[in-house]
Amino acid sequence: MSIEEMTSGHNGVDVATLFATLDAVKEQPQLARFQFRASNRWISGTNNRGTVNGYYGAGQEHSRDADFSFDADHPPVLVGLDRGPTPAEHLLIALAACLTSGLANIAAARGIQLEEVTSTVEGDINLLGILGLDDEVRNGYEAIRVVFHVKGDAEAEKLAALVEQSRRRSAVFDVITHGVPVTVDVATA
Amino acid sequence: MSIEEMTSGHNGVDVATLFATLDAVKEQPQLARFQFRASNRWISGTNNRGTVNGYYGAGQEHSRDADFSFDADHPPVLVGLDRGPTPAEHLLIALAACLTSGLANIAAARGIQLEEVTSTVEGDINLLGILGLDDEVRNGYEAIRVVFHVKGDAEAEKLAALVEQSRRRSAVFDVITHGVPVTVDVATA
Repeated sequence: MSIEEMTSGHNGVDVATLFATLDAVKEQPQLARFQFRASNRWISGTNNRGTVNGYYGAGQEHSRDADFSFDADHPPVLVGLDRGPTPAEHLLIALAACLTSGLANIAAARGIQLEEVTSTVEGDINLLGILGLDDEVRNGYEAIRVVFHVKGDAEAEKLAALVEQSRRRSAVFDVITHGVPVTVDVATA
Repeated sequence: MSIEEMTSGHNGVDVATLFATLDAVKEQPQLARFQFRASNRWISGTNNRGTVNGYYGAGQEHSRDADFSFDADHPPVLVGLDRGPTPAEHLLIALAACLTSGLANIAAARGIQLEEVTSTVEGDINLLGILGLDDEVRNGYEAIRVVFHVKGDAEAEKLAALVEQSRRRSAVFDVITHGVPVTVDVATA
């Protein structure tokens, strides 16, 4: 891959900046410390709205020009009004998004031009758990399956290797497969 | 709590239907088997779009009137264009939403009228992991903290107990704290 190809912005990824960022982080590893945040406000029933804006990273606070806001709700069959995906579906969105963003960066770094990347995610869940009707059943998904379709200017094996490398370096895949300590507190003020 | 109170729709939750649903599932546990799904399409660079619609549950397939769609992207500091939250932020949205939806249902079932429920979620992540610069650093969040503010017509202890019960029965909290098996495959067709 020539310098020209590397800097030409494969797949909409600014590869030169991507590599410059990697070099900067190698020099100053503390730049890699990030804190992401979300807030949520209950609306009515099972409907609530999540908002994302500010985050810390690369040594400083950042804010976006506008908030990102997303409703969640339960569907009527779960006594909601379907004003948004269920929270459990939001989780599937996060997983597919993480694998896809990573794949695009890896393809660009490897000089592979992507044509189309789609994926589907399925999660099996037995609601006897969250309904409190069977202590043997967990609350969360029992299994999640992701299937990718990738088209690009490389042989099938190299396209499949993009998916595998993205999986190996995915933040959301890591959290969902290995778990993370979560504290849930109530502010009394 | 009288029958009238139970059926009056606390907090926008149709409590009568909620209890009827619980009774139906006790009779026919197979109704509790659900499969949620999402799909994703790459747009450009780290920007991609997740879509949610159909799901299986309560013994049948369901579809919504319209798709729910959500963009994800990386911010400029991570060589993206900020066209949506990062996938890791989507995960935080899912967690807060799940705890909040559950809390509203539990409050309704306990006859507590909610006035305001807000929460904030913070997740610490060291990007040396996903950047492949330090094998000792995990890809995902190192820790996640959720803080709830709850106002309603009950004493502080009972409001705090809503948060605790929701945490105990949250699908997304369970997945994020305990992990779940995830397969990632590539379709060759």
